[in-house]
Amino acid sequence: MCRWAAYIGQPCFLEDVVTRPDHSLIHQSIQATECKTQTNADGVGLAWYDHRPVPGLYRDTHPAWSDPNLKSLTAQVRSRLFLAHVRASTGTATSRNNCHPFVVDNWAFMHNGQVGGFEKFRRRADMLIPDELYHERKGATDSEVLFLLGLSEGLDERPLEAMEIVVGLLQRMSRNKGCKPHIRLAAAFSDGEKLYAVRYASDDHAPTIYHRWSKSRQGRAVVSEPLVQTERDWQAVPPGSFCTFTETDVEIQPFRPLL
Amino acid sequence: MCRWAAYIGQPCFLEDVVTRPDHSLIHQSIQATECKTQTNADGVGLAWYDHRPVPGLYRDTHPAWSDPNLKSLTAQVRSRLFLAHVRASTGTATSRNNCHPFVVDNWAFMHNGQVGGFEKFRRRADMLIPDELYHERKGATDSEVLFLLGLSEGLDERPLEAMEIVVGLLQRMSRNKGCKPHIRLAAAFSDGEKLYAVRYASDDHAPTIYHRWSKSRQGRAVVSEPLVQTERDWQAVPPGSFCTFTETDVEIQPFRPLL
Amino acid sequence: MCRWAAYIGQPCFLEDVVTRPDHSLIHQSIQATECKTQTNADGVGLAWYDHRPVPGLYRDTHPAWSDPNLKSLTAQVRSRLFLAHVRASTGTATSRNNCHPFVVDNWAFMHNGQVGGFEKFRRRADMLIPDELYHERKGATDSEVLFLLGLSEGLDERPLEAMEIVVGLLQRMSRNKGCKPHIRLAAAFSDGEKLYAVRYASDDHAPTIYHRWSKSRQGRAVVSEPLVQTERDWQAVPPGSFCTFTETDVEIQPFRPLL
Amino acid sequence: MCRWAAYIGQPCFLEDVVTRPDHSLIHQSIQATECKTQTNADGVGLAWYDHRPVPGLYRDTHPAWSDPNLKSLTAQVRSRLFLAHVRASTGTATSRNNCHPFVVDNWAFMHNGQVGGFEKFRRRADMLIPDELYHERKGATDSEVLFLLGLSEGLDERPLEAMEIVVGLLQRMSRNKGCKPHIRLAAAFSDGEKLYAVRYASDDHAPTIYHRWSKSRQGRAVVSEPLVQTERDWQAVPPGSFCTFTETDVEIQPFRPLL
Repeated sequence: MCRWAAYIGQPCFLEDVVTRPDHSLIHQSIQATECKTQTNADGVGLAWYDHRPVPGLYRDTHPAWSDPNLKSLTAQVRSRLFLAHVRASTGTATSRNNCHPFVVDNWAFMHNGQVGGFEKFRRRADMLIPDELYHERKGATDSEVLFLLGLSEGLDERPLEAMEIVVGLLQRMSRNKGCKPHIRLAAAFSDGEKLYAVRYASDDHAPTIYHRWSKSRQGRAVVSEPLVQTERDWQAVPPGSFCTFTETDVEIQPFRPLL
Repeated sequence: MCRWAAYIGQPCFLEDVVTRPDHSLIHQSIQATECKTQTNADGVGLAWYDHRPVPGLYRDTHPAWSDPNLKSLTAQVRSRLFLAHVRASTGTATSRNNCHPFVVDNWAFMHNGQVGGFEKFRRRADMLIPDELYHERKGATDSEVLFLLGLSEGLDERPLEAMEIVVGLLQRMSRNKGCKPHIRLAAAFSDGEKLYAVRYASDDHAPTIYHRWSKSRQGRAVVSEPLVQTERDWQAVPPGSFCTFTETDVEIQPFRPLL
Repeated sequence: MCRWAAYIGQPCFLEDVVTRPDHSLIHQSIQATECKTQTNADGVGLAWYDHRPVPGLYRDTHPAWSDPNLKSLTAQVRSRLFLAHVRASTGTATSRNNCHPFVVDNWAFMHNGQVGGFEKFRRRADMLIPDELYHERKGATDSEVLFLLGLSEGLDERPLEAMEIVVGLLQRMSRNKGCKPHIRLAAAFSDGEKLYAVRYASDDHAPTIYHRWSKSRQGRAVVSEPLVQTERDWQAVPPGSFCTFTETDVEIQPFRPLL
Repeated sequence: MCRWAAYIGQPCFLEDVVTRPDHSLIHQSIQATECKTQTNADGVGLAWYDHRPVPGLYRDTHPAWSDPNLKSLTAQVRSRLFLAHVRASTGTATSRNNCHPFVVDNWAFMHNGQVGGFEKFRRRADMLIPDELYHERKGATDSEVLFLLGLSEGLDERPLEAMEIVVGLLQRMSRNKGCKPHIRLAAAFSDGEKLYAVRYASDDHAPTIYHRWSKSRQGRAVVSEPLVQTERDWQAVPPGSFCTFTETDVEIQPFRPLL
């Protein structure tokens, strides 16, 4: 598993979401509470939108809690839309290219969960990536494939449908060649305009997603687990949901991949 | 805190102690049981004696559990005497020079514990290191200072007395300038001939040390916590002890630093 | 480009080939003389055969010249057959899984050179890797593909023919989809019994390979460039050659891939 | 040796100085032209002033040319005052804490050059650092000491005099205990308001410093070597100079340390 946190709204320092809260993402890298793996120390990553259409990207393989670059970056960079992730590997190597978020052009994508038995059919999954996107396939994770296939299925024009197709595809491959649980997915992604999230599983254990509007910051945090555990107004996203967050709104639709 | 494991006896593969047992050092890097910090992921190190008087040394800053080099090395290298360590930083940076074991000439040293408030008097501690040893002061840990001061006080000729002097010195400095707990120490060190260990604290919480003779391997493991939790014949070293392990024997003497 | 050095013969310390000579592999990582890239600082790797059928493997992403683990390992480990490599990336990321040598079971493989325009047809090349070997495809280099395809074409039974097929295949793909120079190859690989090397190019610039029998060591070094530049008895391997080195002999056959 | 580049003026993207020019700092990490060491691949660092009094700091141990984080950061971050450095170690370990720039509170400092035989009197140099600054002594470089001693001698109130004292001090120590050349110094540092630089040597080989006002950017670059080698209007700073750069001006005074 992994833990992640995202934000969309008025610009704020990345640290307000990533490092400063009581149960910040850094704290969750040491001691997550709603996660199969308490420790998420196989890498860290940040993607943030600022002056350019393409986001900035910082990824490293060390645990987040001791990363001085992360500490400094989050204290210095302000952004209206960003994604942050701490990794617990489900098998693949610890390397920068296996850390999230993944970035292709203006899209950033991160994932918590797994595709069951992925290593058994990784080749077939890789083969579904079209030629023109294959140069973006740099690592060996199921997460990177979810993202690249999503892009090839039309993440730009119809993100919900694209992800339904892709998740359905990988779920089916796992049923044929992989193992249970076939898919568990809490993903967040953005094109720099909107922030999207999906919560889904082939069984009853879809990894959690919460969100909360902050009056003081005038923005919304979307997270794996609440950043301040005593705050009672974190809203849980139901399993089987596709969320679209704008600067001020949230829309939740059913997420029903092809089985 | 940290966790460590050492071995002296007939040559065996490092993995027999470091990676293969149920509750190996790798397992303890993820989930230690008798340790304040469950996770020990701020680096890993191995020192092993083989063809040369000076030991081989491997240290890296990544968590032990995902380190492919560690896995391969421990599976390939055989040694009659080795030290292995997984680190949980007590404040200093994650860097190779702050990982244990430390090696100076034929001596290797590793430590679990801390000197209370060390950062407040690090300068005074550094100042005690004689000119001829200062080039070996490469990091900023209290552990490296314990070692270098031990060497300067005569670790070669009289290891017990040398460590009593040094531990007393740092304990006193902590009382003057630092904070409680003044010192907690479970250290293991070797000159390539014998293996030494010290268990001591200024309060009631000296980090644990156990040892066990293996008939099959014809050697002895000396560890922070038993490598196989169901094995009942691990012998606990009492607090306030100085141990001398040879290929076949163990001698335990009282350890009484100057207060 | 990259630089490499290998050895087969009576056991010797790795450092005798990798770090100690005047123009050692470490020196070549800073200042190669017969190489397009003078600096080869995108990673380092060692594979050595000792107690086990599978070799030990050490790989890191930092330049070889400052790597303390490499220094220590090469001074401590003795082996009768080993491969060492310093990397200059031709485009792919700096990560452990893109460093050489690559190891699959008892085979180790390293490469200097490139497949022209590989990134344009990487997907098709990856597709040729059979299911049962795909889990070994961990990075994105052309070198790793050369190796995995070689294994799938029968490196075990008929190494020369297997490599002729594979090199021919990639050469043709480069002609169709890639760019000039289509392939330049100086590769060394071993199954733990014999050491093989291939020198080939689709143009006139096949990267160099030399070898030299050492009377004192009773073994043979096979290298990109002579380890001691004043030694006159390094024998150059002609382009279009497939070499088989045993503990005492060398056999050189023509290497003629399908075009 | 090392190479560095700094900027002060109207905000611009870091990449305009660090990565984009023909002979950018990245290019100089591979192939410097006015430097003893052509390759400067023992680490990279950026310090930049933006929303806060303290600068952001990014440092890593890998060569600059392959660092994806550096590429992304410099493309995304805009700043009115920043320092960037690529390192060639003069002996100390490759670790983040030995990379430049060094940051203490609002001060950032970087250095190209060395103190002759520093390792022989490092202890005495370390001992000059006052208690209240010693916690900032994290590595083992002469550069970090130059900085910390400069701070203790009054870098805040009288930067020129402070550096004259410190350089004189270390020059004298090198004469007593070290070796020739006693000191070579091209340093740049800032408090977030002004940018300072010093060019000095105890012999005839003070490392170079140039500066150039950019009309388009409305800011000034201060560098080890010109970023675009065909631009003729880079002004060389004479040896024995102390420079003060503001947003629009430059003042150069003689730099005369105590001998």
